[in-house]
Amino acid sequence: MSASGPAGVSVSRPPLAAPAFRRAAILGTGLIGGSVAATLRARRIAARIVGYSPGADAAEALALGLVDETAASPVDAVDGADLVVLAAPIPVIPALFVAIAPRIAPDALIVDCASTKRSVIEAAKNGLGAAMSRFVASHPIAGGERHGPSASRSDLFQGCAAILCAHPGNESQTVGRAAALWTALGARVVEMGADEHDELFAEVSHWPHAVAFALCGAIASGARAGPASRFAGAGLRDTTRIGASSAALWADILLDNRDAVMRCAGEFRAELDAIESALAAGEREALIDRFEKASRWRRSLG
Amino acid sequence: MSASGPAGVSVSRPPLAAPAFRRAAILGTGLIGGSVAATLRARRIAARIVGYSPGADAAEALALGLVDETAASPVDAVDGADLVVLAAPIPVIPALFVAIAPRIAPDALIVDCASTKRSVIEAAKNGLGAAMSRFVASHPIAGGERHGPSASRSDLFQGCAAILCAHPGNESQTVGRAAALWTALGARVVEMGADEHDELFAEVSHWPHAVAFALCGAIASGARAGPASRFAGAGLRDTTRIGASSAALWADILLDNRDAVMRCAGEFRAELDAIESALAAGEREALIDRFEKASRWRRSLG
Repeated sequence: MSASGPAGVSVSRPPLAAPAFRRAAILGTGLIGGSVAATLRARRIAARIVGYSPGADAAEALALGLVDETAASPVDAVDGADLVVLAAPIPVIPALFVAIAPRIAPDALIVDCASTKRSVIEAAKNGLGAAMSRFVASHPIAGGERHGPSASRSDLFQGCAAILCAHPGNESQTVGRAAALWTALGARVVEMGADEHDELFAEVSHWPHAVAFALCGAIASGARAGPASRFAGAGLRDTTRIGASSAALWADILLDNRDAVMRCAGEFRAELDAIESALAAGEREALIDRFEKASRWRRSLG
Repeated sequence: MSASGPAGVSVSRPPLAAPAFRRAAILGTGLIGGSVAATLRARRIAARIVGYSPGADAAEALALGLVDETAASPVDAVDGADLVVLAAPIPVIPALFVAIAPRIAPDALIVDCASTKRSVIEAAKNGLGAAMSRFVASHPIAGGERHGPSASRSDLFQGCAAILCAHPGNESQTVGRAAALWTALGARVVEMGADEHDELFAEVSHWPHAVAFALCGAIASGARAGPASRFAGAGLRDTTRIGASSAALWADILLDNRDAVMRCAGEFRAELDAIESALAAGEREALIDRFEKASRWRRSLG
């Protein structure tokens, strides 16, 4: 198995056998947790799957056949589990770590799925105690506007990147085990530091969500919200698509990664200022130069 | 035939026979002009089609079979034509009107395809002379990131909206003729005033392009342009897609509709300011409220 490190440096690890778990605990059974469960089952990676959620999601996941049983509490869910997957909203993760710490099995691998990594690692450090060495911060780059257990798919992670942010307390073998898990779930594993992760995803994901929300919000608050809906073409639909995402989920991600996001906001504003100044001054060549640079970058994505 | 007026009011017009033209002059044979030509031919709306472009586009359109002949100049192209379609970049439209005015046939219908309407009507008023009464400002809402004659399609306008902005000098019969043309090309005709058009499209199209260019430009200028390309997911790709559009084309549209665009810029900035303030202050509920309003509007688009 090989994985890519920061700046695309390839990290060699000894090849690992496909992982097999006797009992997987899924804490949070929405789109991501439900899809982990569905894939663990479809690919026979875990013999038994238990789900926990504070609301109705776990019962729905059971009814949909995503999990074999539901647990009444997080600590019950992890009891005897050799795989613990946190797929809960960012604000509840610290309390989940504290809750499960007393009963984590000595051979358990613990991973999360959150969109930010610095704060999750910090929360694990504070909450997990001795089990911290077996926690590998993970971020599968998958999702969608649909959510909840019913949106779960056993191919959600197929071909997506899963970022692993190892911390100094991790043994290399544990990181390898997490990498083997995400590979078995279909993802392409990439390793990078938590700081680099949070800065990079502020730029390619978190801040663009704020921009899409702002664009939708400005139209929705304006005098032409109705006609704008009627004449929204493919361009506006694409540009604002992620503005349909969950408000609470994204408020929490942006708040959690606030410093990096505010840096992106500053860079975006500088670019916006330059465009508006050129526009106001009627500087056609300056405008074209900026747009050329922008469109060259976008076209490079293919 | 029926068309929708401002605020969705339906405008009844007497039903018109499918239009038939003996000679159509296409001034500008890129994606839009080439697609008008292709559709005129595929649907047998015009017996003969002549194309003009200052560069190589007209020769390419001839080689592709989009037009029957090319003309050496705009005035040669319109000679004897009973349909004149301007599909040229906004900055050259005023000079085109002046150039063709002396030889426009007395029965010719003249339409344009530009993304802004106030300035085009003003240019027609200044350039067309007596033929002004037969010019109907038009904006088919179609296009794409691809351009040039080779991107032309005979179904580009199928199901799209074509906005007609009649001016006080138009006879109702002329507007009906233009509506019949766009209907025959496959479009759904909507009538509105030029002011309303320019304000509305600043909001749903022009300003969102500036935002997408700014987002791409900020990433391209930042320290992480390379890794950002590598980790750009579906969300960022959607949000920035129109940032791959033609720099010169969009600089000209934004400059031409500058006042309306600057008003949209102000509304967007106000929303962005509010989001950044809430983020900086850690006001989760305020952030969720704004995002909810935004995502409700976006979800209403379907």
